[in-house]
Amino acid sequence: MARPAPLSGFPEWLPEGRIVEQHVVDTFRRTFELWGFASIETRAAEPLDELLRKGEIDKEVYVLRRLHAAADEEDAGRQLGLHFDLTVPFARYVLENAGKLHFPFRRYQIQKVWRGERPQEGRYREFLQADVDVVGNGELPFHHDVEVAQVMAEALQVMPLPRLTLQLNNRKLIEGFYRGLGAPDVPAVMRAIDKIDKLRPDAVRELLLTEAKLDDGQAGLCLQLAAISSPDAGFADRVRALGVSDPLLDEGLEELVRVVEGVAGLRGERFAVSADLRIARGLDYYTGTVYETRMAGFEYLGSVCSGGRYDALASDGATTYPGVGISFGVSRVLAPLLSRGLLRATRSVPSAVLVAVTNEDDRAASAAVASELRSRGIPVEVAPSAAKFGKQIRHADRRGIPFVWFLQSGDGGAVGHEVKDIRSGEQVAADPGTWVPPAEDLHPRVVQG
Amino acid sequence: MARPAPLSGFPEWLPEGRIVEQHVVDTFRRTFELWGFASIETRAAEPLDELLRKGEIDKEVYVLRRLHAAADEEDAGRQLGLHFDLTVPFARYVLENAGKLHFPFRRYQIQKVWRGERPQEGRYREFLQADVDVVGNGELPFHHDVEVAQVMAEALQVMPLPRLTLQLNNRKLIEGFYRGLGAPDVPAVMRAIDKIDKLRPDAVRELLLTEAKLDDGQAGLCLQLAAISSPDAGFADRVRALGVSDPLLDEGLEELVRVVEGVAGLRGERFAVSADLRIARGLDYYTGTVYETRMAGFEYLGSVCSGGRYDALASDGATTYPGVGISFGVSRVLAPLLSRGLLRATRSVPSAVLVAVTNEDDRAASAAVASELRSRGIPVEVAPSAAKFGKQIRHADRRGIPFVWFLQSGDGGAVGHEVKDIRSGEQVAADPGTWVPPAEDLHPRVVQG
Repeated sequence: MARPAPLSGFPEWLPEGRIVEQHVVDTFRRTFELWGFASIETRAAEPLDELLRKGEIDKEVYVLRRLHAAADEEDAGRQLGLHFDLTVPFARYVLENAGKLHFPFRRYQIQKVWRGERPQEGRYREFLQADVDVVGNGELPFHHDVEVAQVMAEALQVMPLPRLTLQLNNRKLIEGFYRGLGAPDVPAVMRAIDKIDKLRPDAVRELLLTEAKLDDGQAGLCLQLAAISSPDAGFADRVRALGVSDPLLDEGLEELVRVVEGVAGLRGERFAVSADLRIARGLDYYTGTVYETRMAGFEYLGSVCSGGRYDALASDGATTYPGVGISFGVSRVLAPLLSRGLLRATRSVPSAVLVAVTNEDDRAASAAVASELRSRGIPVEVAPSAAKFGKQIRHADRRGIPFVWFLQSGDGGAVGHEVKDIRSGEQVAADPGTWVPPAEDLHPRVVQG
Repeated sequence: MARPAPLSGFPEWLPEGRIVEQHVVDTFRRTFELWGFASIETRAAEPLDELLRKGEIDKEVYVLRRLHAAADEEDAGRQLGLHFDLTVPFARYVLENAGKLHFPFRRYQIQKVWRGERPQEGRYREFLQADVDVVGNGELPFHHDVEVAQVMAEALQVMPLPRLTLQLNNRKLIEGFYRGLGAPDVPAVMRAIDKIDKLRPDAVRELLLTEAKLDDGQAGLCLQLAAISSPDAGFADRVRALGVSDPLLDEGLEELVRVVEGVAGLRGERFAVSADLRIARGLDYYTGTVYETRMAGFEYLGSVCSGGRYDALASDGATTYPGVGISFGVSRVLAPLLSRGLLRATRSVPSAVLVAVTNEDDRAASAAVASELRSRGIPVEVAPSAAKFGKQIRHADRRGIPFVWFLQSGDGGAVGHEVKDIRSGEQVAADPGTWVPPAEDLHPRVVQG
């Protein structure tokens, strides 16, 4: 076949980029498991009618068809589509297995999702997400809203990424505020405020007046509320100073204070937190806490990590399963960082050592050294050919392997061992039973470029 | 929605089963990386025309269609299908990125694959595979055939699975043998011998006589060759004793001896090796070494780990990329073991400790203990409610969490800490800054049931 071209919308990484992705996924996994979240994976396909319940997204689904399906098969059976997020399949998994799960059920899920975007738009059609959720049976205490923010913040805090800001809000707060000021159509207000990042302020005000039927004063208050942003619980006094009161607003304020205070301690050089009262996530079915996340210098990506509280993540009629969760867009974040060289691995292979081969007949001796090093957890490969040592060193150098191991036959059949750090050129005698590389060279590391 | 039913052919695990799967995947990853194999993932979809080049499998492909594709879109563009193995996408990845990869390129790939099987057959339509391959640019030394067998054997050797037998053969050996005895149609002999596990011996002999046009003596020799099975290099003398000679046979014998001797040292209680001269893998394009693997008690599964040497894994016309690799069917092996309870995790959650909550107002104190334990790598969750301690202990017990941590307010505001092993009932004073669980309780373990 001729050299194939990449498929637009389906990002793939070279081995070095994959090491970066593995590092990010490993960090999520380690953090989520330290907090007691269990891993699950769900199948890639769901019945199409279930996928389409979440109406807004129906045009982006990939439908599956067996290549040689019988003519009457597709009509007779239920059509399948690839999942477009991990929330819909998780809700289905919870209902299907409710009798076998223990609630509150704490799960994380790191999988690819697919969206049947039009090819020409250059948007992702396959991407990796990392989701963490808690779901209750009938009820779910509010403290899990704080916990989910904490576990994601703890993972993000240690990621080698540009500065991230976790933005928090609460649907009860904004809905209570709109209701308290007498808005006749609360959802219409929310839809207008949701456009605040996309439209000019005048256009949003116009929507509030015409679509949401507010008067000038009400529209002004809504815009003032949306403008409130605070790194700490100070937002609460600024909201109260707007003079609107409503029991739902009070409940939302109290909840948002608890979440903001719960993650305040995780702030650092690369991770910030703010209460941002314009965050509404209008198109999703959140009912309380909402989370979004911006990455410094990559604001055009929108939110890279989002979620919130659903009062009904799933329901089978008899029982309702409330949930709270947050989802990080792994591919969405890594693609621009990798393509711009802002994130890279210190080498493109796991190997810390290349064992040189003196001649093909002595390959077994080199393999024995490799085996001994591996038995002590050191990643090693043996040179593919007994080329000149200079060529074997270049082989290591091209892959970023820091050490080359040499065997030399000495007097009376004894074998001498030496290891060369090919960066410094320093070569020293070494014992395969005890030598270890410096800790920072044992595995490839992920560094900012 | 009503309680959903499982989708036939799409296996999913409960959290405990997923822990087993993670353990298997982690073991492959650790072993492959110790041998210097780099991880890659390829997109799930490939152009349908590329997938269909490997003709035998075309009826099992899932084709993708955008739900709201324009009427003329599917015809205009290239259709996409889900990959049905990891070899076809790997070959495409090698060609696409040849200029950016270093050869010999050593990669492993652990991903789901899909086959559009008819729903009623009860066969898998989605399953997880673990592949490890080496691919060269123009040439690939034979010692990689030994290496690929070794790295897979080293991983399998430590898996908590029923006894596995790695079965080895070599296409040059059998083709050279058939040629040496004067078979007029070597592929027809191979197709007949390939049916040896499915047909009665008489039926295979009949095929050799009628389809492959052998005479009685030739057919007898072929069946004698296929009956040779040996745990060591002893097979070579038995082949030579059949009195057939051919240069390709000699080459195949020498290669097979090297692979068998290369993995001999990895034999153990749960892992065996044999040269089995009936293994042909007739439908695949192997040109030298071939690997298969049987699992004791699960012979009906067929080979659970297979592969071999391709002289042309990929080719762009100018350059040919030979490869050698082997693939383990993770879902195929785990599904029957999990459903029969033959493999299980010691608990269903990562948490080693549940920190009890004395009352909701003191939740922060429990969260602080959890945080301190986590900072030392201990997976912990905090009780979801300040229920009676008996109920909190049952909460831990249902999940298999071995330890429950209690905080007790003492005189003058001091807090006393105690930790209970809920299996023995033993409860002792403990310091959250220094206490550690026994090593075997730190993470869930995978054990045979």
